[in-house]
Amino acid sequence: MRAIELEGGVRFNADRPDPVPADGEVPVRVLCAGVCETDIQLIRGYMGFRGVLGHEFVGVAESGPYAGRRVVGEINCACRRCPTCLAGYPTHCPNRTVLGILNHDGAFADRIAVPQHNLHLVPDSLPNEVAVFTEPVAAAYQIPAQLSVSRQDCVVVLGDGRLGNLCAQVLAAVSDRVLVVGKHQSKLALLAAKGIGTALLRDVTDSRMADLVVDCTGSATGLPAALRLVRPRGTIVLKTTVAGSQELAWAPFVIDEVTLVGSRCGPFDRALKGLESGEVDVRPLLSERFDLSGGIDALARAQAPGVLKVLLDVAAS
Amino acid sequence: MRAIELEGGVRFNADRPDPVPADGEVPVRVLCAGVCETDIQLIRGYMGFRGVLGHEFVGVAESGPYAGRRVVGEINCACRRCPTCLAGYPTHCPNRTVLGILNHDGAFADRIAVPQHNLHLVPDSLPNEVAVFTEPVAAAYQIPAQLSVSRQDCVVVLGDGRLGNLCAQVLAAVSDRVLVVGKHQSKLALLAAKGIGTALLRDVTDSRMADLVVDCTGSATGLPAALRLVRPRGTIVLKTTVAGSQELAWAPFVIDEVTLVGSRCGPFDRALKGLESGEVDVRPLLSERFDLSGGIDALARAQAPGVLKVLLDVAAS
Repeated sequence: MRAIELEGGVRFNADRPDPVPADGEVPVRVLCAGVCETDIQLIRGYMGFRGVLGHEFVGVAESGPYAGRRVVGEINCACRRCPTCLAGYPTHCPNRTVLGILNHDGAFADRIAVPQHNLHLVPDSLPNEVAVFTEPVAAAYQIPAQLSVSRQDCVVVLGDGRLGNLCAQVLAAVSDRVLVVGKHQSKLALLAAKGIGTALLRDVTDSRMADLVVDCTGSATGLPAALRLVRPRGTIVLKTTVAGSQELAWAPFVIDEVTLVGSRCGPFDRALKGLESGEVDVRPLLSERFDLSGGIDALARAQAPGVLKVLLDVAAS
Repeated sequence: MRAIELEGGVRFNADRPDPVPADGEVPVRVLCAGVCETDIQLIRGYMGFRGVLGHEFVGVAESGPYAGRRVVGEINCACRRCPTCLAGYPTHCPNRTVLGILNHDGAFADRIAVPQHNLHLVPDSLPNEVAVFTEPVAAAYQIPAQLSVSRQDCVVVLGDGRLGNLCAQVLAAVSDRVLVVGKHQSKLALLAAKGIGTALLRDVTDSRMADLVVDCTGSATGLPAALRLVRPRGTIVLKTTVAGSQELAWAPFVIDEVTLVGSRCGPFDRALKGLESGEVDVRPLLSERFDLSGGIDALARAQAPGVLKVLLDVAAS
């Protein structure tokens, strides 16, 4: 099969063997896949990953109860036997593999093997280029799943990129006071068009009035900025990771009794409902589409300024 | 009056003018005061404080509704008018002064002026050398006030000093699985004698099984150690501050969805009840007592290895 693989360097392989599904896994024929910031990081050496890239996808199950139907797949493949899994936290299973990220081939390929347990049926109303956003949209819905956010809460989303946009839309459904702070007028305009408050970072004074600040910057400047915006006893959600270690004064967390919440993968069922109802509109994020054979170009474009989501069209439904 | 004052350097002044109570403040004749780690930090330049040191005290109110009765006093003097106060967070009032810490003379003196609103009556059953611990015991009770802790939760307290000891006792009242991790066998023995689990830091393997880790180390090594001990989706309470900034990899907060909660001053009413009922036993912590005129020696002793609480006896009841 065809695949974009990371083996030393990143390359297109027209003749990679099909994945061999393990026990409980189902082969999925990939229709469409999305390029994520994590893919870029993996190419730069994050996690030391080797194999097929890609963890955002929509495809057709080729066996199992969903055979012949369109599916999306949760990325964490848990053992479902260890104390962490049994305690109800399979996404944190210490024995897990992660599609396209950790010891498991990903979705930038004609086929991917996915645990049946991880699959979710895609409603007919969702076209592939919308359903392919389920994974990052689920990550955004993880915030209200972890925290109670109320209508009156002043919520600041730091970062106007792909994830910042999705988090802002999800949070705008639960709070009337969402402000997205970013550096790109064109990206902020997408949110302003939906009636969500926006501001350029350089125009924001550190008012310390935010009940909740969500750091989607993917930058080491995000958390210090969040600390300047959050009110005493407020909450900061750390949504994006930064490689390596960072310098920070931690005393303000104690003095102002601030809570920091790390947030990663989220609920696929909620994400599919949000996409179906239009609560989250992903179409304005779609920047460019490439054929799978153009995957190397797609990965380069995803890093270009102003580009939001880049998709790989792998096969026609 | 007599006072230990920080004016450039720290010194004993036998002839400092009595404090002049502001509107709503009551003069309190100090009976006994405790030396806290913060006093040591203030002498080293923290907060740039000038004035009378001391914020842990028991005394006798000289006017107001509690005139002639023994009192302890909350340390944050809030304006009670600003949005933060009106939102129910007076300890975070941006206009606050803090007894012996920020723009308000403290309790290492014959008299201190305290807002009537901050005073709590001391039950007759509590001797001065117990009641003087109300402030740090309240700080320990702030943890269960901020978080729900259950009997089965595995709780690790990092640090076997004064605050670590008090936090461990408070948490042992709500969880059956408290482990205090420290560096001093003699200090850990005080907790072991109460049936609380203890371990030397060098013997602890990083099992990542703690539901809750409370960092009472006052050291830059505390938070990294807490991150090694906490389970995925677990909570770290940051109880002590460290001056300056520290280098740390933030990604584990996101990957493991760890929550960090900053925790500072706590409920005096709960602390007085805990001291009265014996839920918290402070007597084993009492290392040495000095007369107020020996305050400079007391501050030096509080920094000596193996010394836990040092008290200043200011006056007889």
